[in-house]
Amino acid sequence: MQLSGVRALTFDVFGTTLDWRGTIIREGERLGTAKGIQVDWKAFADRWAQKYVEARTGNGRWVPLDQILHKAGNEVLDEFRVAGLTKAERENWCSLWSRLEPWPDVLPGLKRLRSRYLLAVLSNANVALSIALARHANLPWDQILGIDDVQVYKPSPRVYCLALRRLGLEGHEVIMVAAHLFDLEGAKALGFKTAFVKREGEDTGDPTKAGYVDWIANDFHDLAQQLSR
Amino acid sequence: MQLSGVRALTFDVFGTTLDWRGTIIREGERLGTAKGIQVDWKAFADRWAQKYVEARTGNGRWVPLDQILHKAGNEVLDEFRVAGLTKAERENWCSLWSRLEPWPDVLPGLKRLRSRYLLAVLSNANVALSIALARHANLPWDQILGIDDVQVYKPSPRVYCLALRRLGLEGHEVIMVAAHLFDLEGAKALGFKTAFVKREGEDTGDPTKAGYVDWIANDFHDLAQQLSR
Repeated sequence: MQLSGVRALTFDVFGTTLDWRGTIIREGERLGTAKGIQVDWKAFADRWAQKYVEARTGNGRWVPLDQILHKAGNEVLDEFRVAGLTKAERENWCSLWSRLEPWPDVLPGLKRLRSRYLLAVLSNANVALSIALARHANLPWDQILGIDDVQVYKPSPRVYCLALRRLGLEGHEVIMVAAHLFDLEGAKALGFKTAFVKREGEDTGDPTKAGYVDWIANDFHDLAQQLSR
Repeated sequence: MQLSGVRALTFDVFGTTLDWRGTIIREGERLGTAKGIQVDWKAFADRWAQKYVEARTGNGRWVPLDQILHKAGNEVLDEFRVAGLTKAERENWCSLWSRLEPWPDVLPGLKRLRSRYLLAVLSNANVALSIALARHANLPWDQILGIDDVQVYKPSPRVYCLALRRLGLEGHEVIMVAAHLFDLEGAKALGFKTAFVKREGEDTGDPTKAGYVDWIANDFHDLAQQLSR
């Protein structure tokens, strides 16, 4: 796939840029030690993510993702019978998705990519949550492309279409970067170029068999290397 | 005016954050020396800005500001009888508004303000131009709130309304920062708090007599100082 003419990269965030599962497990273990409770935090993290996927695919009124995640956090605490938290501790836990940590290659990789390309967020998170995450992890985004205005989620074509309009670019000028094949397939339908990044615990599909995947990278270092040619 | 509850600052860019007139004069003098031509670059800068204000207040089809500025740059070169430029030099000159320099207090001031507040652009520039300016001057914005979607200019209430919606905040949680009274008056109508920044050559009105001005600052250092209390 030709790199000439590519001006911007749009990034998925949860799983691709930020290690949501690892952050929840680490913070959960810290909480467990402090409170003397034993929980399967990996199962907790997966259940939390599952609830948010269910909620966002529901047909109800539009609710920003930070609110969905907060409510789901409370419910999963009850499901896993995590007791003995103060109100402040519970509140702090439920907002954990606004304090996720990046994968270790992300900051140096983005720094390298930014010298050549415009970098934008294209996440299913609402803008306020994406800003909080960028501030927390010090992510050098040039712009956050929120879905708040279209009120639908990726892979709806409306999301990718809005991104192109906001950037003032054509699909062939933008590479969608994600660790999930459905996201790249959605972007390709609008003419984006696509880069799959391998992340442990994310998409288990085979990107080499997906005709809509243009680049496959082991991490953001590798991505920066491949996109610097 | 109470600072409690303030979560974000929205910034005007041309004149408030970036010294458009000074940049044009400096770059003009450099060009004049290189090409051996004499031009009143201050008059050139003011004419360029005047043409863009006229164009944006016209009633024609929506045109992004970077295109307006580019076209106006070409016209003003002809008006001022600047001859002898190569096509590349002319092109480079006409895109000068995407390479404006910040006032000297801007970067340290923004750095201080960002430790406490979310910082967003609320400019009449289109998003692509605001991104280019942020990259050129290394401005640490958390988000760029473009007017591309409403296709009207400040002080239209729709611009400030869109900004609040995009940030997910209420007016009293946001301070509009500008060196122009009309901008602060427009923001105040939507409930924003307002900070006037004195900039040489910008608004000549008296902010102490404007009931809608909540803070008056000499520069971004002073603004950061006043907003840290």
